[in-house]
This record gives sequence, structure tokens and C-alpha cells, in this order.
Amino acid sequence: MKTKVVVVGGVAGGASFAARWRRLNEEAEIIMFEKGPHVSFSNCSLPYHLSGIVGDRQKLVLMDPEQFDRKHNIEARVNSEVIHINREKKTVTVQKVGTDEKYEESYDQLVLSTGANPVVPKLEGIDLPHVFTVRNVVDIGKINEYIQQEEVQDVAVIGGGFIGVEVAENVRLSGLNVSLVEFANQIMTPFDYDMAQVLHKEMIDHHVNLIVGDGLKEVQADGITLQSGKQIHAQAVILAIGVRPETTLAESAGLEIGETGGIKVNQHYLTSDPTIYAVGDAIEVYHQLMHQPTRLALAGPAQRQARAAADHLHGIPHRHTGVIGSSSIHLFDLNAASTGLNEKTAKMAGISYDTVYIMPNDKVGLMPNSHPLHFKLLFEYPTGKILGAQAIGKGNADKRIDVIATMITMGGTLDDLKELELTYSPMLGTAKDVVNMAALVGLNLLHGNLNQVPVSEARNLVESGAFIIDVRERKEYEAGHLRTSVNIPMSEFRDRLDEIPKDRPVYLHCRTGQRSYNVYAALRQLGFEKVQNISGSYLGISHYEYYDDQRLQRDPIVTEYNFK
Amino acid sequence: MKTKVVVVGGVAGGASFAARWRRLNEEAEIIMFEKGPHVSFSNCSLPYHLSGIVGDRQKLVLMDPEQFDRKHNIEARVNSEVIHINREKKTVTVQKVGTDEKYEESYDQLVLSTGANPVVPKLEGIDLPHVFTVRNVVDIGKINEYIQQEEVQDVAVIGGGFIGVEVAENVRLSGLNVSLVEFANQIMTPFDYDMAQVLHKEMIDHHVNLIVGDGLKEVQADGITLQSGKQIHAQAVILAIGVRPETTLAESAGLEIGETGGIKVNQHYLTSDPTIYAVGDAIEVYHQLMHQPTRLALAGPAQRQARAAADHLHGIPHRHTGVIGSSSIHLFDLNAASTGLNEKTAKMAGISYDTVYIMPNDKVGLMPNSHPLHFKLLFEYPTGKILGAQAIGKGNADKRIDVIATMITMGGTLDDLKELELTYSPMLGTAKDVVNMAALVGLNLLHGNLNQVPVSEARNLVESGAFIIDVRERKEYEAGHLRTSVNIPMSEFRDRLDEIPKDRPVYLHCRTGQRSYNVYAALRQLGFEKVQNISGSYLGISHYEYYDDQRLQRDPIVTEYNFK
Repeated sequence: MKTKVVVVGGVAGGASFAARWRRLNEEAEIIMFEKGPHVSFSNCSLPYHLSGIVGDRQKLVLMDPEQFDRKHNIEARVNSEVIHINREKKTVTVQKVGTDEKYEESYDQLVLSTGANPVVPKLEGIDLPHVFTVRNVVDIGKINEYIQQEEVQDVAVIGGGFIGVEVAENVRLSGLNVSLVEFANQIMTPFDYDMAQVLHKEMIDHHVNLIVGDGLKEVQADGITLQSGKQIHAQAVILAIGVRPETTLAESAGLEIGETGGIKVNQHYLTSDPTIYAVGDAIEVYHQLMHQPTRLALAGPAQRQARAAADHLHGIPHRHTGVIGSSSIHLFDLNAASTGLNEKTAKMAGISYDTVYIMPNDKVGLMPNSHPLHFKLLFEYPTGKILGAQAIGKGNADKRIDVIATMITMGGTLDDLKELELTYSPMLGTAKDVVNMAALVGLNLLHGNLNQVPVSEARNLVESGAFIIDVRERKEYEAGHLRTSVNIPMSEFRDRLDEIPKDRPVYLHCRTGQRSYNVYAALRQLGFEKVQNISGSYLGISHYEYYDDQRLQRDPIVTEYNFK
Repeated sequence: MKTKVVVVGGVAGGASFAARWRRLNEEAEIIMFEKGPHVSFSNCSLPYHLSGIVGDRQKLVLMDPEQFDRKHNIEARVNSEVIHINREKKTVTVQKVGTDEKYEESYDQLVLSTGANPVVPKLEGIDLPHVFTVRNVVDIGKINEYIQQEEVQDVAVIGGGFIGVEVAENVRLSGLNVSLVEFANQIMTPFDYDMAQVLHKEMIDHHVNLIVGDGLKEVQADGITLQSGKQIHAQAVILAIGVRPETTLAESAGLEIGETGGIKVNQHYLTSDPTIYAVGDAIEVYHQLMHQPTRLALAGPAQRQARAAADHLHGIPHRHTGVIGSSSIHLFDLNAASTGLNEKTAKMAGISYDTVYIMPNDKVGLMPNSHPLHFKLLFEYPTGKILGAQAIGKGNADKRIDVIATMITMGGTLDDLKELELTYSPMLGTAKDVVNMAALVGLNLLHGNLNQVPVSEARNLVESGAFIIDVRERKEYEAGHLRTSVNIPMSEFRDRLDEIPKDRPVYLHCRTGQRSYNVYAALRQLGFEKVQNISGSYLGISHYEYYDDQRLQRDPIVTEYNFK
């Protein structure tokens, strides 16, 4: 098949399509147009140039046009912007960037992989030379050079999504002062508010000036002003507010745009014109769990879409699975990962769910690399179907989330998750893995063997004078506890049942919820019917409250935090 | 329910049963007998005492009898050996260890969790005081004290399974000389011979004197003699040849023993006596993939069995999933993990399979913590059903294997694995994960789009004068290549097609197999019908051959090894 394929955009989606199409069609003509000077660069690695983890900027460029030519027989034309699609003639108009030179190139099949652009709000001072966005190797190089040449000491990053957080981390790692400003009440929207606090704490502990619930109002020469009126000193401002699918070309060609603002595609990634595919950040995709269109600017799905489109063009059937939204981030000493639905998206989709929040150790406690892993699981109520999970800790959070992503894809339930036989050795895990444990807790909830209140309720319980029992041992209690809690250690409770009321709600917690569950089970059998567990326990409460207390200056509800 | 439960054995299985039963039955009487002085110790962590990673031996003991009593209201009687079961009377006879004191204890329900014993062959010198086995905290303490008091410099470890390898590693980490002797031709049977070479290399690189294909013949005061006649200097000898299920008690009580030598149980972990459960290393289990009984001495399954048995006793239904055999090991700088079937067990079970062997980087190549991950996938031919996998590398091999274990449990196929949407960020993974990539290669094999020979064939190809093309770039070739290979870089092959024969088999490789697959795809379309890929490529060949060359002194088939 001598189909002439023209690809617009030479990064993840475009380059993947071209390479796959070449493998399928050795004799096809393939031309790839890229507006910027580089094709096939590591988009996700850009922030790591700011800390020097990727010292040489050129390393971010994975392949140059010559390599595309020699290795894949693909003609990659950089600095070449496709400015128009002539659908009747099946040609594109190409403008050489920085010149008036324009020409037409014909195609049999066109592939749009135009990506997404950083959102730049129209605010005063936004065009000043020390305001930057991060989209490509040129951008990140500019920021790095500016910081060095101008001897910048204070950087403001606007936006707490993946790019903003990674940029803030890497600038901080380079030794500069960083403020991170996020308009919502938390950073990293894939995580629920309770889990996000663990990330907030990590930012604060690493001396990032974290500001949530406030937005950029104005940029000045030496800083920014927020909507609250707060002034922040900054000689460089990096905008990472979000991205908007680059659909200009598609729209001008009359291609259908979806309700979410991305290019609309069918199950084969064909646009409303059957000679034009679209893949990557520019399109809207189908969410497997929400059963509705969504947008997802991630490299993995872009590559899979590109492959599926090339396969379709070649006549190879492709099962369209939609997306579930799996992602991860390394943040200072933490790893954080999530997949599927969180509480916000489950609510948006109108799906009935319940949650488990546990933080067992990720390795055998004796091992030097053992750390608590904050793990939150969402399952559908009443089916027990796994909907999503979030994990944060110093260990391999991503490992547990990948297991959950697999479960979701395979339609697994809590019963399946409970039985999973995962790998174990003391340096790498625990005999009963975190995900097994979460499934057991979930089944207890589903079967009515456990009543719990979320960690976010701890403050209300303390402030309303609820009866709270801390079942940790005395020394642990003395090292920090909820201000109004009673200490009845697990090792004493059977002798002290008379101290526990039967006629009012009793809230139990320990350090991670394991011991309090044992006490819960006993008390329920002994006729204490109003007993409940505080999900998240003392470790979760400490993390949840630390941020609020540090930042909002509310009275602490604990005598001391405990983060270990 | 006031069922009186007597548990024989107080480690993983026994303690788990007791704790679960307590949660289900606050008022039941629970007595747990343990022959040794400790209940609930971390069996799998024992070897780490030898390196000092677990410095204080007492830390290996997770709970003492007093804690069992106070926290769980479970009576744990240590140094108490159950020597007889009186099934008619429903009593056990207990002997206090080291005394003649015997007594009977009645039960409503008995649980056997008697574990497994180290195999000790009847050889000359085997009873000498410097010959040890590793079963419990007392054993490991004895070894450590002996090594220190006798100022041992040279240790011989017999047996290359999990315990032998971990003991050898930890003794080596403490600075002593270690010889590891394994009777089979490889250590770590969960791994196939090709993958095991990566582990062999790690042992050799860390100066463990690794001897495979040789067995212990005799122990002397200052060393050992092997069956080959080889003498090894050693002031301490640690036997880790294997374990045998401890079935003495069950056999003497007339309980049915399975064909594999473990106690036979039904789907509820009931023995042939409906008032006696058995769980853990002492029983035989059902292999989900082999569809036959097997034995599996692992902590995770033991805990799940214990829980299932307690649930059954309580009337809670339990889905019996059998086992697939997932395990992992941390070995010096490597992590290794496996699940499901390997080539040996697939052959034993008579299951038709094919394999994928790839070693892509586990993280984005730019990142400082990026390393090749050796990954082998087995799938059923022709169904594409995932059967098993093995992974070895410096990064999180266990993460990928846990995904495969999940896939196996859920009955997934290559098509499912290909579509898995896993978490990704540059520091933690790659956009197209190793497991996605393996699925794509597997589908190429299944669909007839790829012919390959295994890495073990490389030597034959070189020695038989096969036409081998190394498609790496010139500099890579110059830094080390197969002695008889021709270098036609991927960037040149389209101009050098006339150098490639069409009338005889042509074998391609690059560094990891990715580039050679591109060339393969092109050549097949260009009429080169006899082209094949060498699975494992140069990185795999180097690992495979290094061990042979180092140890067996055969002529190297490469000019230089390449391990990166």
C-alpha cells in the first residue's frame, strides 16, 4: 500500500503513528510536520532540566530529523507549521516558521497530533519577559537560561497540576525559593482532598511556599499579586495553569469538535473526515468508567492511540478500551500515583461508591526501607467493583496503583482483589500486600461488618465532644493524641469495657486502623452497637490536619503530630 | 459460638488463623501451641540478621505470648510440642519441650500449621557443630553467634533456593567469603535458565563463589567436599537444600497425605477429618494454571489459607482460587520477581506456550535511576492467555510481575495486557510500560508477524556460521559484538540490502530487540522471508554468555560483553 501519510505534530502521538506506519508499510511515503525545531522530545522530562537532573538540554531531544530519515525513512520537517487543511484537494498548507514561505503538500491520509497549548490568562503584566510557559525544549531552555543569566532567586509557579508541581520541585531542588500558587483548594486533582494533604505536607516540608485557594491577578517586574491581594516576590513566573487542546487547524478545516473541547474522534481515532485521524492531547477520549467523553493529556494513551490509528489504516482490528486515567508523580521523597475514579469524578459520574483509606507499611517493618503507604481505594457500592485508587508514600506507590489499574481494566471486584497472589519478600513488600488489605477492609464495609467515618471528620468529632477511644498503647498515646480522646489500649480494653458507653456513638482509632479494627470487631460482638472506626487513624489525621494547622492557623486538634 | 479452637504452630498460618478467628468470635477459647520459644516471628526476614540489616534478633519476633493474650485474648503456649492427636477423644497430647511433662488438651476444632522442615541429607560430617539449618529465630541466632565467636571467615551455603540465596547474600554483605553450592544447573528455580544467568552474574560480581551442577558429599571440620571432588574451605556450613512439609503429626493421626507429600486438604482447607483444618507450608495446594496439586512454601498464601479456613469455620463462604506462585527476591543490587508458569512448569503441565524476552529501560532513559529490566513473558499458544512472567533488574521488577499476577488471576490475554493503562512519570516508568511492550511482541509472535530464536541459540548460531546482522550503530558494534556478526546499522540497512542474503536464514539483533524488530518488519516486506530475530538481543546474549564463559571457560562468542 503506497498511501502517502502526512502527520501534523512530531512528538508522542505523531512520531508514534509515523514509526508504526513505517513498520506496517515499508514503501509508504511518510512526512511529519513539526512547528517547533524538535521532533520526538521527552515532553514529560522537561521539568527535570531545571534541577539539572537532565543537565544537557539536547538530551531531551530523542531523535532528530536525520535519524528519522535514516532509521525509519520518515521525512520529518521541523520549523514547519501546517496552517491550513484543504480537505477537498487533500493537501495541507505549510508555512516555514519565521518566514513567509508557504507551500502545499498533498496527502492520502492526514494525522493530526497537534497537542495542547498552555493556558495563558489575559492579565496585566502577563506579557512581561520574565513570564514563561512550559511546552517544549525551547521553552524549558529559555527558563533555565533566564534564571541563570538574571541570577533569579525567587520563582513563582502558577498552577498545581503535574507540570506546575514538577516545575516547582525541580526549581526548588536547584536551590531557589519557590512559591506555588493553585486556585483550587488543593494541588494535583487526580488525588482527593484528604490524600492531597500528604502532598501538601511534602511541599511545605521542602520549603515550597504553597498557596492554595488563591489565583494570579497581576504580574509585576519583581513579583506577582494574587486575587487575595497577597504579594509574592518573584523574578521569574512560570505559568502552568493548564492546557487547552490545540484545535485551531481542525476547527478551521471544519472538523467536528467534541463537547469537552477536544477534536472529536470515533473508535478508530478518525475525525469527522474519514481521511483524517487525530490522536494525543488534542482529542477527546472516552472514559471507560464515567461512560462519557473526557480529555486526558498523557503520553501513554497518546502512543496507544497512534498505534491503534495506524493499525486501523492498515486494516488491523483494534479493540477500543477507552481510558481510565492512570498517572504518577515523583515529588521530593514521595511517590504518588492514581488510577480510575476518585471521589470527585465518581460523584460527577453519579456512581455510587464507598472508600477505604489505610496506611500500612509498604515493606516488612523491620526492613530499613519500610515506610507507611497512604492508600485509598474506591469501589462501587453495592457491586464491589473496583473503581479507582490513590497511593502516596516513600516506597513504590506506583506498583500498587498499577495493580489496581489492571483490576479496573479486567473488571475486577473486591473479592478478586482480596485473593490476588502478589510477589513478596521483606525488602520489597509484605506478605499481605496493601491492596489485599484494602480489599479486606472494603469487603468489611460492603458486608456491613465495619462502620467508619472519614478522616476529614476527625476535627468535627473533637470539636463536638464525641467519645473517641485511642486504642494505641500508652507510650504512643503520650507521644501525641487527639485532644479529646480517651486512651484505652488494645491490650487493656477487655478489662475496661465499663468505661465505654453503649448508648452513644464511640469512635475508635489507633495508628493505622489495624488495631482499632480488632477492637471494633470485639466491641460489636460485645453489644457496643454504636462503635465506629475513624478511617485513616492517627497517621491519617496527622497528615490531614498538619496542612490545615500550618497554613490556616486553626487550633490543632492533636497534641503532637505523628507522621511515622 | 463458643467453639474451642486449638492451633498447632504459631507462625504465619497459625497466628493468622487465631487472630482472624478472634475477630469473628470474641468469646471463643483459642489456644495456640508452638514447639519453639517464639510465636509470630518474621520467617522471611531471618537471613537479614546475618548482615546486620536486622541487628537485634529480638526484633524478628513480632509478638510474644503476653501480647497475644492481652491484645487478642489468645493463649499462646510456647516450647509446647503437640506430639499426638487423639481424634476420637478430640484432644491433643502436648509435651513441654525439654521435659517429660505431658498433658492433654481438648478441642472442638483443630488447626494444623506445622510448617516445613529443612531437608538434612544423611552425609558424613552433617552432624558436626558448625553445620546449621535456618528455620527460626533460634537457628539464625546460633549461626550469627557461631560466626562471631569462632571468627569464621569462610561460609559455605548449600542450596540455591530463596533461603540459600538470601543467606549467602547477607553473609557476603557482612564481609565474609561465601560459597554457594547448588546441585541443579541454576539457582532460583522460579526463573528459567536464561533469566537465572542474570542472577548468577550478580552473585559472581559480588564475589560469591557460585558453584552450580555440584552437590555436597561430605562435611569436614574445616570445609566441605563436593560430589565432583572439589574441596571448599569453610568454617561454617549452612544447609538450605529445601524444605519438607512437617506432616509427622498429621500422618500419625491418620490424616490423608497428598501425592506431593503435603497434608491433603479440600477447598476449605479441611483435612480428611472435618474437625481438623491444615494451612501453610505443611499442606499441598491446587495450582490454578497447572490444574494439579503442588506445594508452595510462601507466607502470603499461608495467611490467605488461614483466613479462608477461619471464615469457613464461621460459615462465611470463601472462593478457593488455588495458587499461581508469585514471589520476589532482593539480591545485592537487583530485584527479581516471578509469577505463574515458567518454561519448565509449563512443559511439566503440558501447556503449549511461547515466550517473549525483552529488556527495555524501566524508567525514561534520561533519568538517573533508569536501568534495563530483563523481562520474560509466557503466554499460551494459540489462545494468547497470560501464563507467567519473570523480571530482573535494578528497578522495581516486582511492580511488573504484580501486574502480570493480576492479569493471570483475572484470566487476561495479550490483548488485555497490550491495552493496560498503567501509571507513568519519567522517574517511575516509561510511557509504554515494559508489560505493554511485552504484550506487543507477544502479539507479533501470535499473529505470525515475528519469527525469533531464543537467546540460548546465540552460541549455536555463531559456531555454525549463521548469517547474523547486528543492526546497532557502528560505535556500539565496535564496543563489543558477536564474533561472526555483520554490522549493518539500522541507519544504513536500506542502502545495503544487497549485502543481505534472501536464500538463507538471516538472524537480526540490536541491543534490546527494539531496533532489530523495525529492521525485521522492513526486511520481511522487502522479500527477505527467512529473517529472524534473536530474542534477548546483545544485552541478553551478554548476560547469558558471561556466566558460561566466566565459569565454564568456554571461548567467548562475543568480543566484549555489554551489560548496560
